[in-house]
Amino acid sequence: MKLVEQSCSEFTSLLSSKAAVPGGGGAAALVGGLGTALAGMVCNLTVGKKKYQQVEEEVKAILTKAEQIQKELLDMVDEDAEHFLPLSKAYGMPSNTEEEKKEKERVLEIALKQACEVPIRIVKTCYEAIKLHEELVDKGSKLAISDVGVGVQCLRAALVSGQLNVMINIGMIKDEDYVQRVKAETEKLVQEGTKIADEVYQKVEKVLYV
Amino acid sequence: MKLVEQSCSEFTSLLSSKAAVPGGGGAAALVGGLGTALAGMVCNLTVGKKKYQQVEEEVKAILTKAEQIQKELLDMVDEDAEHFLPLSKAYGMPSNTEEEKKEKERVLEIALKQACEVPIRIVKTCYEAIKLHEELVDKGSKLAISDVGVGVQCLRAALVSGQLNVMINIGMIKDEDYVQRVKAETEKLVQEGTKIADEVYQKVEKVLYV
Repeated sequence: MKLVEQSCSEFTSLLSSKAAVPGGGGAAALVGGLGTALAGMVCNLTVGKKKYQQVEEEVKAILTKAEQIQKELLDMVDEDAEHFLPLSKAYGMPSNTEEEKKEKERVLEIALKQACEVPIRIVKTCYEAIKLHEELVDKGSKLAISDVGVGVQCLRAALVSGQLNVMINIGMIKDEDYVQRVKAETEKLVQEGTKIADEVYQKVEKVLYV
Repeated sequence: MKLVEQSCSEFTSLLSSKAAVPGGGGAAALVGGLGTALAGMVCNLTVGKKKYQQVEEEVKAILTKAEQIQKELLDMVDEDAEHFLPLSKAYGMPSNTEEEKKEKERVLEIALKQACEVPIRIVKTCYEAIKLHEELVDKGSKLAISDVGVGVQCLRAALVSGQLNVMINIGMIKDEDYVQRVKAETEKLVQEGTKIADEVYQKVEKVLYV
């Protein structure tokens, strides 16, 4: 059974166990999915309301993007697990002879890059989802303003968590060009994304803390 | 069917819809539960390992606390939904006559306080769970250090989100004593909790960004 088809309760139990999957990567993808779903919810509570007629088309466009990103992030919960298993196998390879060592190193390098792939995508998609909340904090129904705040906080956590999962794998990759390229790319998105998320959150606070 | 018994995929879909529940409060409780589960996972990957024999008893004690908090937070997903429904009913009460207005005000005040109850507990328990990660970042298996980072980020998001859900309800409560007391109590935990979470995260970063 797919991990995302497990009940919330069962997924949480599996996460807390020492089972290889789900791990931090899968949790990040799910939390990102929840943060994106809150963007969708704010859109759904805004569309059709007279007060927000002027922004209706824009909010509908945000909803379409949110639905797409939510699907991608939920898919990543299982994709991350699938990519982790070859890595866990590679770690278990023998390394008694020089030949075995070389082969293990070769397979490990491939598996590590593969294990980075989903976390990199988590960073990219959470960044995109944060930008949706950036629009919604101004355009969405004020009745759901706290949900924009919760959503952007979840996505901020998922963005940073994706990056942590990139970093833990990247530390052992030998291909320095790859390492530098991925680091630069994800760090930039994390820096910008957390900055935008904090600004959105401050706007929410300003409305709620009157 | 209880919300936490829904599949992750179905819960996320429900969240994104305009259905009254789950909302931001339920999402916060679930994300807190996931962050706590990661504390449990780190404990489970540490206990029984020779390298960490010296801290084994302490880590076992953390695990017991994490399991308890995880259960509490997952229960809050449904409790928050149950407490939201009377509020949503109260909003719908008629207010045509002076008598109706008074009665609506009375019922609304009770329902608003009730709707604050779970978010207040989310703040308290997430604060406690952040303290578990504070211990684990030093005592837990270094192989799972990124999971401490992800866990503490999820809990930071859930803590702040709990507070947002307190604030959106509190804004309409007339009982000024109650408002001031709850505000002071939760704000203190949010300030301290986010500070600790950020320190834990920085420790994780230091290990991963060598």
